Amino acid sequence: MLPSLPILAWGRAYRRETLLGDGLAAVIVTVMLIPQSLAYAMLAGLPPEVGLYASVSPLLLYAVFGTSRVLAVGPVAVVSLMTAAAIGEHAAAGSPEYWAVAITLAFLSGLMLLAMGLLRLGFLANFLSHPVIAGFISASGILIAASQLKTLMGVKADGHNFLDLGLSLISQLGQAHVLTLMIGVATVAFLFWVRSGLKPLLQRFGLSARAADIVAKTGPVAAITVTTLLTWKLDWQAQGVKIVGAVPQGLPPLTLPLWDLHLWQQLLVPALLISVVGFVESVSVGQTLAARRRERIEPDQELVALGSSNLSAAFTGGFPVTGGFARSVVNFDAGAQTPAAGVFTAAGILLASLFLTPALYYLPQATLAATIVVAVLSLVDFSILRKTWHYSKSDFAAVVATLVATLSIGVETGLIVGLAVSLALYLFRTSRPHMAEVGLVAGTEHFRNVQRHTVVTSPGVLSLRVDESLYFANSRALEDRVNEAVAKRPALGHVVLQCSAINDIDASALESLEAIDQRLRGAGLKLHLSEVKGPVMDRLKDTEFLRHLSGRVFLTHFQAFKALAPEIA
Amino acid sequence: MLPSLPILAWGRAYRRETLLGDGLAAVIVTVMLIPQSLAYAMLAGLPPEVGLYASVSPLLLYAVFGTSRVLAVGPVAVVSLMTAAAIGEHAAAGSPEYWAVAITLAFLSGLMLLAMGLLRLGFLANFLSHPVIAGFISASGILIAASQLKTLMGVKADGHNFLDLGLSLISQLGQAHVLTLMIGVATVAFLFWVRSGLKPLLQRFGLSARAADIVAKTGPVAAITVTTLLTWKLDWQAQGVKIVGAVPQGLPPLTLPLWDLHLWQQLLVPALLISVVGFVESVSVGQTLAARRRERIEPDQELVALGSSNLSAAFTGGFPVTGGFARSVVNFDAGAQTPAAGVFTAAGILLASLFLTPALYYLPQATLAATIVVAVLSLVDFSILRKTWHYSKSDFAAVVATLVATLSIGVETGLIVGLAVSLALYLFRTSRPHMAEVGLVAGTEHFRNVQRHTVVTSPGVLSLRVDESLYFANSRALEDRVNEAVAKRPALGHVVLQCSAINDIDASALESLEAIDQRLRGAGLKLHLSEVKGPVMDRLKDTEFLRHLSGRVFLTHFQAFKALAPEIA
Repeated sequence: MLPSLPILAWGRAYRRETLLGDGLAAVIVTVMLIPQSLAYAMLAGLPPEVGLYASVSPLLLYAVFGTSRVLAVGPVAVVSLMTAAAIGEHAAAGSPEYWAVAITLAFLSGLMLLAMGLLRLGFLANFLSHPVIAGFISASGILIAASQLKTLMGVKADGHNFLDLGLSLISQLGQAHVLTLMIGVATVAFLFWVRSGLKPLLQRFGLSARAADIVAKTGPVAAITVTTLLTWKLDWQAQGVKIVGAVPQGLPPLTLPLWDLHLWQQLLVPALLISVVGFVESVSVGQTLAARRRERIEPDQELVALGSSNLSAAFTGGFPVTGGFARSVVNFDAGAQTPAAGVFTAAGILLASLFLTPALYYLPQATLAATIVVAVLSLVDFSILRKTWHYSKSDFAAVVATLVATLSIGVETGLIVGLAVSLALYLFRTSRPHMAEVGLVAGTEHFRNVQRHTVVTSPGVLSLRVDESLYFANSRALEDRVNEAVAKRPALGHVVLQCSAINDIDASALESLEAIDQRLRGAGLKLHLSEVKGPVMDRLKDTEFLRHLSGRVFLTHFQAFKALAPEIA
Repeated sequence: MLPSLPILAWGRAYRRETLLGDGLAAVIVTVMLIPQSLAYAMLAGLPPEVGLYASVSPLLLYAVFGTSRVLAVGPVAVVSLMTAAAIGEHAAAGSPEYWAVAITLAFLSGLMLLAMGLLRLGFLANFLSHPVIAGFISASGILIAASQLKTLMGVKADGHNFLDLGLSLISQLGQAHVLTLMIGVATVAFLFWVRSGLKPLLQRFGLSARAADIVAKTGPVAAITVTTLLTWKLDWQAQGVKIVGAVPQGLPPLTLPLWDLHLWQQLLVPALLISVVGFVESVSVGQTLAARRRERIEPDQELVALGSSNLSAAFTGGFPVTGGFARSVVNFDAGAQTPAAGVFTAAGILLASLFLTPALYYLPQATLAATIVVAVLSLVDFSILRKTWHYSKSDFAAVVATLVATLSIGVETGLIVGLAVSLALYLFRTSRPHMAEVGLVAGTEHFRNVQRHTVVTSPGVLSLRVDESLYFANSRALEDRVNEAVAKRPALGHVVLQCSAINDIDASALESLEAIDQRLRGAGLKLHLSEVKGPVMDRLKDTEFLRHLSGRVFLTHFQAFKALAPEIA
C-alpha cells in the first residue's frame, strides 16, 4: 500500500476563514505546550530543550500524513515514562549516550509504526483491551507522579517501579529540601485550584465555559512565570533550589540514530510497546475528536503519520512522540479547523526554542515536576476496577494483573502481563462453549434447553445445541460431552447436533466430528446434523466427513426429530 | 479435587472369565513390548534395560489410577525423541549423568501431570490443535527415522534437527559399515513385508483377520531372534557389527531424581511439552478405544494416572512414559477387558528383565534401529497437508509452520511455533467479525444483507448486524465501521445494531458501544439496539451505557424500523 497524503486534500481547499481559527488555536496550544514539552523531556530523563525539539518536526510531518484534523503530536506523559524505563538500562540519565539512545528509540519506533501502517497491521493494537489500557494508564500515572516526588522534595531517587521508588523516597524523607518542597507544594496547590476553582470564578465574571477552560489551561505558564521570577529576584538558587539552568538556544539539531545492531535488538521490545501504546492513545483521541465533527480517521494511515513523526523526531534531536489527549482537546476547543494549526504550533515552538530559552534559566525544576504531577493525576482513574468488577470478572482480573505488574515490576512487564492475561481469559472462555441438550416444546416446532423448559425428549435421540463456533480449543469439549451422554444412556441410537449457532468449523473441529461419528458408529449409533449454516455447509460438503457420515443432515431440527423419533413429533 | 481410584471399581467386579482375556492380551503385549522398550530406550539415548524398567511400574500405577480399561503405558517413540532432545544439552548420551537427568525429567513431568490433573487443567491440552499435532507427529517420525539411520549404517551422527542430522549422515556415507547396513536393510524389508505381505498370507491359510494382525505384531520379535542367533553363530561382532552387549539382569533399581533447582529450571519447558504431548497422545488413544465399547475416560483423572506413572518411572530407574497407540490397540484387539491386563504385562516385562537379558547380548543394534524406523514411518502422514489446504487455509498455515520449525530447529521449538501460529490465526479471525448492513425484505418482517438481497433501506437509518460476539479484539472494528458509515452518509439520523448473533459483550466492547453512542450523540445521531439476547441484556441492564443510551432498545429489528423509518415499514 502506498501511504496517502491528506495534506493535498485539506491544503488545496484551504481558505482564509480557516486561517483565523487555526492561528488562534496554535497560539493557545503553543503556550500550553512549552511547559509540557520541557516537563516531559525531564520525565524521560532528557535535557529540557529536547522536549522542544520533539515538538516541532513531528507536528509538521503529522500535518502531511495524518488523517485527524486536530490531533496535536509531541511528547506525552506515558510514552515519556516508557522511554525513561527503556533507556535506563543502557545509559546514565543526563549523559550524551542517554540522549543518543532516546533518538535511536524514536527511530526504531518510527520504523515499526511506518511498517505496521504500510502492512495495514493497525488492527494489532486492538488486542490491548480497554480495561488493560485503562489499568496500564492509571498505574503509569501513579508511577510518573511518584517519580516526580524526588524533584519536588529536592532529593535523588531511582527505580522503575513503585516499590523501588517508594523505598528510595522514604529513606530520604529526612534530606528533603524545605524551600524546594514549598515551591513544589505551592505550585501543585495552585494548579489544582486553577483546574477546579478558577473556571467557575471566570464564568461568574462572564467568560464562556469554553473560554474559561482555555484560560485554565494556561495555569502552568503562570506558575512557571511566577516561580521563575521569584527564584531570580530572591536568589533561591543560592539557597539550594535546583533550577533548569542554561538551555541551549537555537534550531533543533540534525541527529542520527546509533547504528548498533546489538542495541537495536535490546530496544526491539520497548520500541514495539511504545509504538503500540502511543498508537492506541493517539487513535482513541483522534477518533473521539473526529467523530464530534462527523469526520473519520484511518487507523492504518495514522500509523504512517505517527511513524513519520517519530522518524523526524529521531533526525531532529527528539525522542518518541505521539498524539496527546489534553493538547488535542485544547486545539479542538480553541477552534482548529485543519492540520495547519499544527504547522503554526510548530512555528511557535520553534520561536520559543530560538528566543525563549534564556528566560527559562531560573525556572525551578520543582515547578516542572509539579506540572507533571497535576497533569498525570488526571490519568489515574480506578473506576475501571469497580466497573469491571460489576460487569465482567475476567476483565476485572486483567485490570488487576496489569495494575499489579506495572506498579510492582514496571511498564513493559505490566503491559505484556495485561495482554497475556486478557488473551488467555478470552481463549479460556471460548474453550468452554455453552452446550445444551434441547427438547421439543410440545405443540410447536421449537427446541429449547431441557434444563430450563418443559420439553419432550426421546430416550433414543440426543439433541445437542452448541452455542459457539467450533475450533480446536473447544472441539474436544464436544467430544467429551457426546462420549459422556453415550456412556450414560444405553438406549441411545441417534445423536443430532443442532448447528444453528455455529459460524465456523475449523480442521480440528472437523476431525473431532469425524472422531465422534466413528466412535458412535463403532458403538452402533448414528450422528446427524441439523440447521447447518450456508457458509459452513459450503465447506463441509466436499469433505470425507460428510460423505461418510453415519446419519443425515436435516434442514431443520424438527425434521430430524420427525424422522428419528416419530413417536413424539 | 481428590483423585479417584478406578481400581476399586474394576477390582471388586473382577471375575474369573475376564482373567482369560486379560491374560492372553498380556502375553501378546509383553512379546510386543520387549523389543519396543529396548528400542525406545536406545532412541532416548539410554541403555536398553532402562526401557524395560520404564515398562513395569508405570503399568501398575496406571492400573490403579487410569480410567481407560485397555491403555498400555510405557516408553513411546515421540516422547523418547523429545526426551533425547531435552537431555542432550545437559549430559553426554550413555553417561550415568544422562540417565540421572532422564529420571529427573520423568519426575518433573510426573509432578506437572499430577498437578494439572488435581487442578483440573486437562483442557489446556486442547489448545494444541489437531493439525498442529498431526504436523508435529509426522515431523517427529521423520526426525526419529533419520536419527536411526546412523545405527543402520554403523556410523556416528548427531543433531536434533533434520538439517544437522542429514549433513552429518551424508558426510559419513563413505564410512558406512556394509554388514551392519545389510542387517539393517534386511530387517527393515522383513518388517515391512510382515506388515503388508504376511497378513494376507496368514488369512489365506485360514487365520482370522484379528489373529493375523496379532501374529504380524510379533514380527520384531522374530527379527530380533533371527539376527541375534546369526550374530552369535557367525561371530558378526568380530566383523564390526555393534551389538547390545551385556544388559544387567535384575529388578528395576530404586532411584531418585537429581535435587538440583538450576537443572529443574532448565528442564521446566521440555518437561511441560513432554507432559502435554504425552497426555494428548494418550487421551486420544484412550478415547478412541473406550468409545468402541461405549465406555468413557476422564481426561483430568488420566492426568493423575499418567502423572503417577511418570513419578513411579522416576523412582524405578525409568524415563518419561505415556500411553502408546500400537500397544493399546493390540491389547484391545487381543481381548483385554480390564487394567489387570496391564498388571500381567508388567509381570511379564519384569520376568524378562530378570531372566531374558542375557539372551539379548548378541542382538545387533541395527535390528533395534530397524524396528524403530518401521514403527515410526507409520506416524508420518502428510495427508493433513492436502486436507487442510482444501478445507482451511489457516489450519494449513499452522501445519506448515509446525512441520518446518520441527524439522529445521527441533521438537520443542516446533511445538511452540505450532501453538503460537494456530492461536494467532484464531485470534486474527475473530478480530475481523463479519458485519453486514441489513435492509427489510419487502412484505415481510425479515432483514437481510443489502449486498446479497433486494431489500428496502432508509437514508436516515443504518441497520448493522454483527455476526460474532463482541470482545476487545473486534470491538474497534465495529467503531470503525460505524464511523465510516456516519462520515459517508450525511442524511443519517439513526444507527440500529441488530444483536441477534452477539452471545457476549465484554467490558472493552461495552466501552466501544459507549464511545459509539457518545460520538453519534455529539454528531446529532442516535444509537439503538435490537434483538439483544437475554443473558447479554441481563448484564447490560445495570450499566451506565444503557441508562444513557441516546436511542432505545427494540425487541425486534422490525419494531425498530417501524419506529425510526415509518415511511418504509
